[in-house]
Amino acid sequence: MQARSEETRTRILRQAVGLFAGQGYDATGVAQICQAARVSKGAFYHHFESKQAVFMNLLEDWLKSVSADLKATLQEAPNVIEGLLSMAGRARSIFSDADGQLSIVLEFWAQARRDPEIWRRAIEPFHMYREMFSSIVQQGIGEGSLRPVEPALVAQALVSLAVGVIMQAVFDPKAAEWDQVMQGTMKLLIEGIGRH
Amino acid sequence: MQARSEETRTRILRQAVGLFAGQGYDATGVAQICQAARVSKGAFYHHFESKQAVFMNLLEDWLKSVSADLKATLQEAPNVIEGLLSMAGRARSIFSDADGQLSIVLEFWAQARRDPEIWRRAIEPFHMYREMFSSIVQQGIGEGSLRPVEPALVAQALVSLAVGVIMQAVFDPKAAEWDQVMQGTMKLLIEGIGRH
Repeated sequence: MQARSEETRTRILRQAVGLFAGQGYDATGVAQICQAARVSKGAFYHHFESKQAVFMNLLEDWLKSVSADLKATLQEAPNVIEGLLSMAGRARSIFSDADGQLSIVLEFWAQARRDPEIWRRAIEPFHMYREMFSSIVQQGIGEGSLRPVEPALVAQALVSLAVGVIMQAVFDPKAAEWDQVMQGTMKLLIEGIGRH
Repeated sequence: MQARSEETRTRILRQAVGLFAGQGYDATGVAQICQAARVSKGAFYHHFESKQAVFMNLLEDWLKSVSADLKATLQEAPNVIEGLLSMAGRARSIFSDADGQLSIVLEFWAQARRDPEIWRRAIEPFHMYREMFSSIVQQGIGEGSLRPVEPALVAQALVSLAVGVIMQAVFDPKAAEWDQVMQGTMKLLIEGIGRH
């Protein structure tokens, strides 16, 4: 039963991604998600409270896999500066994977502004990433591979840069090869804080 | 007559800013803007095609004053690296000035996605700033105050960083002193590309 329930949840999420990306978050209803995933409304509401909950789960699953990927990349590196540079290299493929789904984020955020609880969960990843990078930078200063920069400020710069690239990719997808921009600009910032 | 017409236009824009910021872009109608500005609908449509046109004008006026400010700052500096650092200093006050109006940008963009013409004009500033910074960086490499970095990539990093900070300030205004984050992260990036 456990396995079947998990399979249902996964099927709902997978169909929802397709519908959100294809026709927009706004235009997609719970009934349509149920139909595409071949589940009853009862089964849907057993797993998710609402359409927003589906979206939050998609976002959180994606962010979990991104931070697991980044942490594994760091652990394989000989030191923090090399680790950060490898993470910038990974950013490119992570970014390409997410490409089709980025445009939904803007629509979701515009909606989330009206719901304080969803809003709180939507901004939580920013905090998590700032803290994660802040402690990585602290480690890099300790081991001597980074200059004695301010960890919180560097973390803020890395997160802001990523958010800025993602936003431009959403607004203006054809203006650049955004995965390359992500990798190149991250590398530029990271090299700037390394010991020369 | 010229002066009076200009005064009417300014009054419409000023009242529209207040309404957009106070109750949101979506919730504000042309009739309400006319009432607040004490102008007839005829006078309104003499100056602006639509509510979106009012918003585009506000955005364009603001961006014009920002780039004029940045260019003047650069011209007063002895070289490009000092100029970029002074620009980062200015970014802070520019950012504080705009603070109350930032939240409208998200709402506007979410709407603009459905109108190709508005969309085209909404992404135009990104291109303009990328080109402006690309040529500034080129100048800095030429004079020797910057390392031989790739101008387009540095421009992309500067614009992405600014967009990322602005977006986080919109999403999560209380999480940081965003004007200080803008100045500090810009400084970090710029110092990284200077000759050491």
